[in-house]
Amino acid sequence: MNGVTGRMGYHQHLLRSVLAIRDDGGVALTDGRRVRLEPVLVGRNPAKLAELADRHGITEYSTDLDAVLADPTIGIYFDAQLTGVRRDALLAAIRAGKHIYAEKPVVETVEDALDIAERADAAGLKTGVVHDKLYLPGLLKLRRLIDNGFFGRVLSVRGEFGYWVFEGSSPAAQRPSWNYRAEDGGGITLDMFAHWAYVLENLFGRVEAVLARTVTHIPERVDERGATYAATADDAAYAIFELAGGAIAQINSSWCVRVDRQELVEFQVDGVEGSAVAGLWGCRVQHRGTTPRPVWNPDLPTTESFRDQWTEVPDNAEFGNGFRAQWEEFVRHVADDPGAPAYRHDVRSGARGIQLARAGLQSSAEGRRITLEELA
Amino acid sequence: MNGVTGRMGYHQHLLRSVLAIRDDGGVALTDGRRVRLEPVLVGRNPAKLAELADRHGITEYSTDLDAVLADPTIGIYFDAQLTGVRRDALLAAIRAGKHIYAEKPVVETVEDALDIAERADAAGLKTGVVHDKLYLPGLLKLRRLIDNGFFGRVLSVRGEFGYWVFEGSSPAAQRPSWNYRAEDGGGITLDMFAHWAYVLENLFGRVEAVLARTVTHIPERVDERGATYAATADDAAYAIFELAGGAIAQINSSWCVRVDRQELVEFQVDGVEGSAVAGLWGCRVQHRGTTPRPVWNPDLPTTESFRDQWTEVPDNAEFGNGFRAQWEEFVRHVADDPGAPAYRHDVRSGARGIQLARAGLQSSAEGRRITLEELA
Amino acid sequence: MNGVTGRMGYHQHLLRSVLAIRDDGGVALTDGRRVRLEPVLVGRNPAKLAELADRHGITEYSTDLDAVLADPTIGIYFDAQLTGVRRDALLAAIRAGKHIYAEKPVVETVEDALDIAERADAAGLKTGVVHDKLYLPGLLKLRRLIDNGFFGRVLSVRGEFGYWVFEGSSPAAQRPSWNYRAEDGGGITLDMFAHWAYVLENLFGRVEAVLARTVTHIPERVDERGATYAATADDAAYAIFELAGGAIAQINSSWCVRVDRQELVEFQVDGVEGSAVAGLWGCRVQHRGTTPRPVWNPDLPTTESFRDQWTEVPDNAEFGNGFRAQWEEFVRHVADDPGAPAYRHDVRSGARGIQLARAGLQSSAEGRRITLEELA
Amino acid sequence: MNGVTGRMGYHQHLLRSVLAIRDDGGVALTDGRRVRLEPVLVGRNPAKLAELADRHGITEYSTDLDAVLADPTIGIYFDAQLTGVRRDALLAAIRAGKHIYAEKPVVETVEDALDIAERADAAGLKTGVVHDKLYLPGLLKLRRLIDNGFFGRVLSVRGEFGYWVFEGSSPAAQRPSWNYRAEDGGGITLDMFAHWAYVLENLFGRVEAVLARTVTHIPERVDERGATYAATADDAAYAIFELAGGAIAQINSSWCVRVDRQELVEFQVDGVEGSAVAGLWGCRVQHRGTTPRPVWNPDLPTTESFRDQWTEVPDNAEFGNGFRAQWEEFVRHVADDPGAPAYRHDVRSGARGIQLARAGLQSSAEGRRITLEELA
Repeated sequence: MNGVTGRMGYHQHLLRSVLAIRDDGGVALTDGRRVRLEPVLVGRNPAKLAELADRHGITEYSTDLDAVLADPTIGIYFDAQLTGVRRDALLAAIRAGKHIYAEKPVVETVEDALDIAERADAAGLKTGVVHDKLYLPGLLKLRRLIDNGFFGRVLSVRGEFGYWVFEGSSPAAQRPSWNYRAEDGGGITLDMFAHWAYVLENLFGRVEAVLARTVTHIPERVDERGATYAATADDAAYAIFELAGGAIAQINSSWCVRVDRQELVEFQVDGVEGSAVAGLWGCRVQHRGTTPRPVWNPDLPTTESFRDQWTEVPDNAEFGNGFRAQWEEFVRHVADDPGAPAYRHDVRSGARGIQLARAGLQSSAEGRRITLEELA
Repeated sequence: MNGVTGRMGYHQHLLRSVLAIRDDGGVALTDGRRVRLEPVLVGRNPAKLAELADRHGITEYSTDLDAVLADPTIGIYFDAQLTGVRRDALLAAIRAGKHIYAEKPVVETVEDALDIAERADAAGLKTGVVHDKLYLPGLLKLRRLIDNGFFGRVLSVRGEFGYWVFEGSSPAAQRPSWNYRAEDGGGITLDMFAHWAYVLENLFGRVEAVLARTVTHIPERVDERGATYAATADDAAYAIFELAGGAIAQINSSWCVRVDRQELVEFQVDGVEGSAVAGLWGCRVQHRGTTPRPVWNPDLPTTESFRDQWTEVPDNAEFGNGFRAQWEEFVRHVADDPGAPAYRHDVRSGARGIQLARAGLQSSAEGRRITLEELA
Repeated sequence: MNGVTGRMGYHQHLLRSVLAIRDDGGVALTDGRRVRLEPVLVGRNPAKLAELADRHGITEYSTDLDAVLADPTIGIYFDAQLTGVRRDALLAAIRAGKHIYAEKPVVETVEDALDIAERADAAGLKTGVVHDKLYLPGLLKLRRLIDNGFFGRVLSVRGEFGYWVFEGSSPAAQRPSWNYRAEDGGGITLDMFAHWAYVLENLFGRVEAVLARTVTHIPERVDERGATYAATADDAAYAIFELAGGAIAQINSSWCVRVDRQELVEFQVDGVEGSAVAGLWGCRVQHRGTTPRPVWNPDLPTTESFRDQWTEVPDNAEFGNGFRAQWEEFVRHVADDPGAPAYRHDVRSGARGIQLARAGLQSSAEGRRITLEELA
Repeated sequence: MNGVTGRMGYHQHLLRSVLAIRDDGGVALTDGRRVRLEPVLVGRNPAKLAELADRHGITEYSTDLDAVLADPTIGIYFDAQLTGVRRDALLAAIRAGKHIYAEKPVVETVEDALDIAERADAAGLKTGVVHDKLYLPGLLKLRRLIDNGFFGRVLSVRGEFGYWVFEGSSPAAQRPSWNYRAEDGGGITLDMFAHWAYVLENLFGRVEAVLARTVTHIPERVDERGATYAATADDAAYAIFELAGGAIAQINSSWCVRVDRQELVEFQVDGVEGSAVAGLWGCRVQHRGTTPRPVWNPDLPTTESFRDQWTEVPDNAEFGNGFRAQWEEFVRHVADDPGAPAYRHDVRSGARGIQLARAGLQSSAEGRRITLEELA
């Protein structure tokens, strides 16, 4: 496990996924066998690694990636480093015959992602990319509604993601300044379209074309040291996605909006038979049978309470940690568990996320609809 | 007044505007004079006209438009007929030396609208087009917030308009079937973009470019007689507008969505200093000083109630009928009242509404951003 | 640290400030260096000192102030003794070349405070006075609102401080009896005006003139031993302050009122663009855009819920202990940290607090407005 | 009745008082007799008078005051004209032998008021001035609490009156522009101190001295015609009143504050045995027995909900219209009803209101406490 000294890597991947699985005795396969996980930590700071290993009873850690990759008892290489340095590490892991699992965006370009996919295929190795949002309760409920045919034909998806990220100073900004510098890999399109790609393709259909307008609404911000800097990356992206199957997804992503929703991100799905509004946690629905029939009378005040006409979807399940669920799924995939569902979140899926982000930026720059060719 | 036997024409223009002004003694000008209104009804159904005239103490009515236009005591020609037949009537009124006031869309093409504007100018006649939404409480409150500098620099406007229009049969559709037939002038883009044009240009800035995707989500509907028909017109339009001054307006219009809002249409305005969400009636705000500072932690459920962080804007005024307010404004314009505010809702403004609708359809058809040239 | 065996001195200054800083590795300066703190306790009761030192791992304590001051490794002398004995200790510390930091009121007269300031200046030593209220969440939120221009021009500040201090016996008084004896330095004016001085000058402008009426509402109370005594000090002060910049601050301080507020002290700030009501913890605001427009109709009952028209200001930050924040600020000031904000809470600022209290008492006695000359 | 075509005069004095009494058969005296009222309208606009008379079955009206005063069947002259023209009318009425009843402020100067009082006395005529606030439910409940000894010795009264009067334009100002021009008799001190005088003297004790600061917070406003004008009158007054009996009343009056109260005006009364907060309609109390004992710990957040510790005073009566109650009281006074309570609201009481307003302005101008000599 490389790069788990950071906040997300430590909490989500090491603590709540791999160590939790280890402490529960491993991942159970269909045939009753259990695949046990024993992490080996890799990083740049030996003191931090020693402290982490000691705190959690981890026996092996190292600052030498090559040495670790040379260990034949290790089966999976996991990478949660910064995107910019991930490609070389993944290639080394493949050369060393390891299956690879990585945070998103998996690498920086579509070409690099496809190259990794091909090399892994050629070596008979499996790949996985973190698609954590799909495993959160709100989207799991959407999945359940889709599986039950609640929507009938889905016509459209509308999504709003965003909140007000302060410009800095008073109060302090709640995101790092590199997010707002294009030269450092910042920008909301690169950050969020990778998510929209796998959410849309897994729930509603692959994105076939995109029309987008990306903007930098706030041109100047204050960084962690109190210095003013030029915000060169996009801080809002307005996009219209055309999905395989004919539905339209219109999604706004912005760090310059105030939140008049129940969650920071919400998707409304409208189908012939019913509609749903899902966040990452909650989900409410309105079926055709309870759909009101308002008449557009602009000179009369609204008398219906439209919001009260929706019904909350009950949990009806314990939702575990999404990162752990995905780790378990990948481990079963690696173990060729015949009872496991088909594994869809491989590096090619990660490549489609990068492809969508690049296409969004290109659409905005060229003022035209960009079609996304299917990645072989 | 031509075409006031229909629902909107009768209730809004005749009853609540012209007759109400007549009964209150006319429109007061700055110098104390009052312009009295005395309607003359024109239509195709003499029985209906007679009944209306009798019910409201109207002395003159006719089915012969030319004869009425020849009456030199008449100053203003008003038209609320179907768009398709309006152009010829307006041209006749201009030839007869009448000021003209008309429902929107004023005619079918930008060229026709500009032609009417030029002919009226040449004849020294004044023109007006109904822009009623601007006079409703929600948008008046937005106007007041803008005038008071509440938003600081406006960054973006997001709008959602729509509701579920039933396909017909059970329950019955709540809109006429011609709305869904392109060959009859239907389509949500033609209907609503005319509104978005004047709302945006009056509150935030002229629309300079548009990216849109229009679709027909429901291809088959049932008409007033119970017969199935092909819906050839667009029933949803997803659009991104670029405004003079740099703000972005993203507005979805749809007859195929279910309503999870307080009103059928709502606009969220985000500015550096504050934000507002306005419908046609209500308006709530969040100032920078009360803006929360959420951190994006997708693995943790939301604990803040974001919706409770907004404050309703009080009325602080009696809001009169919007149609009547606009009639009074037009009458003062015609009477050259020096104390009246500059009149902006003329036929050229109506032409810009048609231009925007046409540009939206073109953008969708050609898959590219359409810039809107400024109409001379 | 002299006088930290008392309640405030122990909890706020020793435990939550100096020891907490020590345990966290000291105060971080801009250049990365850390100033470590190691307290030496001074007091009159050796047993208490020994117990405290033992409980918290403090190696040095003494009942001999002079001996401690002679220790060249000590940089800062802190004093939380009773006001009456502080002057001599501070002068001794200055003679011994120590920077001084003290509770408020720093000494009893303006002259003594200025004398200390001059001697410290002459010796190149730094001084600080505790201004803890400024560091509490409610006033920090006010500060943030001011920095963000929320109020526009501030017109007025109204403050209510107070609660019912029982006269003694049943139930027991919740303040010490010396507070009610002028001969012992008691009185609410001396106690609270020192706070109002720094709160007003740091947030809104220096106090330039005062009109006040101080009174002794309850002339007889019962002391700690159950004996009745004459209350000779003022137990309420009604004051009107004129601030530099033109705003008026009207503040009532009373130990003879019952509390119909959310906190024991609340300040309402009214500006052209908005208003706020802040306690020491909470803060709620009303912007011009959501200001109601009530009409004064005394014969009609109120129908608006005015209190519901205010919005709570979110924390948007972790607020640390105010005493500790101020200790860290003073340590950075002493260490000449170039990245530290300008230090304003020195003994001269403490002198202005005493000046305001004296002026309030004089205004009441002479029945006239007292102007406060600026202290050099 | 002179001057009842205005809003207050018409609604309160004519419609809800005199006509209501007439329609109920007059005012019942202790001995069973009934004094019937038959109004005669006097004014400048004959059309308005005729219309009013016709609408309410009033047989006599006139534009000639002298002629009406010459009518020997008329017993009481009532005046609700603008203050500036009232003096001459009242003197004429006294010369004609009429009892007089008038709106407040009764005239413009203390001297004029005393002159009227003396002339009425000399002629054996009775006088009355409207003191309507005393008859509203909130102050009646305070009266009841005082009569029942609820407060014990009253220590202090604190009052807040005010709301945000918009500067004009958007939204429109909700008070007439003359209120803000000193040259037209405007100013909040002249307007409100007349009320505070009778409220304080009737409930708590005569005002013996005043310390006040009056200010013009908003120097420029927009008038009814949309023109900007200089606001020359005071729009806020901060005052400390010393009352006979030793209590202090601190009352702020302002047209430049936002309302964080339950009513536009509220008075908090604190006594040794209990406290009350009364508006014009509601009144809540806290008795010594339910008084909390908070300790002032500024470093700890408040955990008590102080507002929930108050108890609303029930109505326990039907509160009639306050203006009518006062009319009935004055009629009984004129009729020498031996069972009527002593009448206190005569022109001398009105003189004290003017005296207080003048003293407040003088205190602010001269920066000193002004004592109010008792008017003979």
